[in-house]
Amino acid sequence: AMDGAPPPTSPTGLSAYVAVSQLLGLTLLATTGAWLGRYRGGVAWHSPLQFNAHPLCMVLGMVFLQGDALLVYRVFRHEAKRSTKALHALLHGLALLIALVGIIAVFESHRTKGIPDMYSLHSWCGMATFVLYLLQWFLGCGFFLFPSTSFSLRGWYKPQHIFFGITLFILSIASCLLGITEMLLFKISDSYSHFVPEGILANTLGVLLVAFGLVVGYVLTREEWKRPPLAEELALSMDFKTLTEGESPGG
Amino acid sequence: AMDGAPPPTSPTGLSAYVAVSQLLGLTLLATTGAWLGRYRGGVAWHSPLQFNAHPLCMVLGMVFLQGDALLVYRVFRHEAKRSTKALHALLHGLALLIALVGIIAVFESHRTKGIPDMYSLHSWCGMATFVLYLLQWFLGCGFFLFPSTSFSLRGWYKPQHIFFGITLFILSIASCLLGITEMLLFKISDSYSHFVPEGILANTLGVLLVAFGLVVGYVLTREEWKRPPLAEELALSMDFKTLTEGESPGG
Repeated sequence: AMDGAPPPTSPTGLSAYVAVSQLLGLTLLATTGAWLGRYRGGVAWHSPLQFNAHPLCMVLGMVFLQGDALLVYRVFRHEAKRSTKALHALLHGLALLIALVGIIAVFESHRTKGIPDMYSLHSWCGMATFVLYLLQWFLGCGFFLFPSTSFSLRGWYKPQHIFFGITLFILSIASCLLGITEMLLFKISDSYSHFVPEGILANTLGVLLVAFGLVVGYVLTREEWKRPPLAEELALSMDFKTLTEGESPGG
Repeated sequence: AMDGAPPPTSPTGLSAYVAVSQLLGLTLLATTGAWLGRYRGGVAWHSPLQFNAHPLCMVLGMVFLQGDALLVYRVFRHEAKRSTKALHALLHGLALLIALVGIIAVFESHRTKGIPDMYSLHSWCGMATFVLYLLQWFLGCGFFLFPSTSFSLRGWYKPQHIFFGITLFILSIASCLLGITEMLLFKISDSYSHFVPEGILANTLGVLLVAFGLVVGYVLTREEWKRPPLAEELALSMDFKTLTEGESPGG
């Protein structure tokens, strides 16, 4: 709005959906906290409660922060692409760090209690998701933040990055649902089938995770809500098109 | 090819991805069969094995057939839209019927054994997915097969139908993963952590389910692989556009 024009507005509905996603995200964290605090003794690091850091970190990192990182291009649609991209990478980086703490929490807690690692479907899905998420982050930085990557290479990788980004977000939520089911069957296997409050609360956390994924997924896939290129970006890509068409021998 | 032109071809890569999806789909069924046959005593209706009909029907109906129903517009891209649409509705209808049999199997088996219903996260996610899938099927038939629905109403509903269709397919796979985890923790809770073959096999089934979803999802979301409108459909939509533009007072 350097030319004195009115500030650009967001499409109708987008802000409402984003607001709902953030409310759901906070409710996710509150519900996880309530489950661990009220029924599982709370969270602490060097203690028998170390395991409880795992669900909390995974919901915060792999779901809430990962989801918000996916939303930045929709929310900050009128900011410079450079800054939005940096925020996208930063939020994913933070999500990865918090998830790493959560993973360390299970492995240390298993070692202390003599429980074997990596035998369950939850651990297979969760670990695969984390490793691929880390890989996607490195690839994203390499292709989009590293200044010398060619435009055509970025153009080829971008749809893959988006597809696998959404896939990893979905897999993260699925891994959380598996973790909730495992934890309930380990901790309250005898009472779960009697609709005890802890079971209902943890099931509700699962439903909220699905709802968060649904709202974020809807915002991301709605065509009219995609970030429009800014005027100066269009000019740049026009220049680039002229340049490459000049380069190609076929004309 | 009424005008003697060479028969239309599919985009490069699409056929390969579809072939891989079908191989994965058949492997899913074989793996489910192997698990139930080799480790769970097989499948039978009026018997203590009735429960085993549940996983088999759900993998066949809610995953394999539902996935294939989603692919028909990509696979039969040069057929008349009418026939492809009928096949899409038919495959989803078949998937719903088989899933219904699978759901009856758990409820009857629970009643026989005195096990409570609908307390687990798996049952919540699975039942919600089935009910919404049935609703989506009725809405799809109403909007797209019922001849008098207006073009503009169809145009408004179509993106919603696609988004919720893919969402329900993902939720179906997630529900299967929850079911696998539950079944393993009920049946082999003592040996699961020792990497027994049954645990590895069932985990592999989970990974195959994710892989099937990934390949189907990739085919569905790739822009260049969307079904192009046929020449006669384009002409029709042109006529329609002229008509509606004639109607609108703004011109």
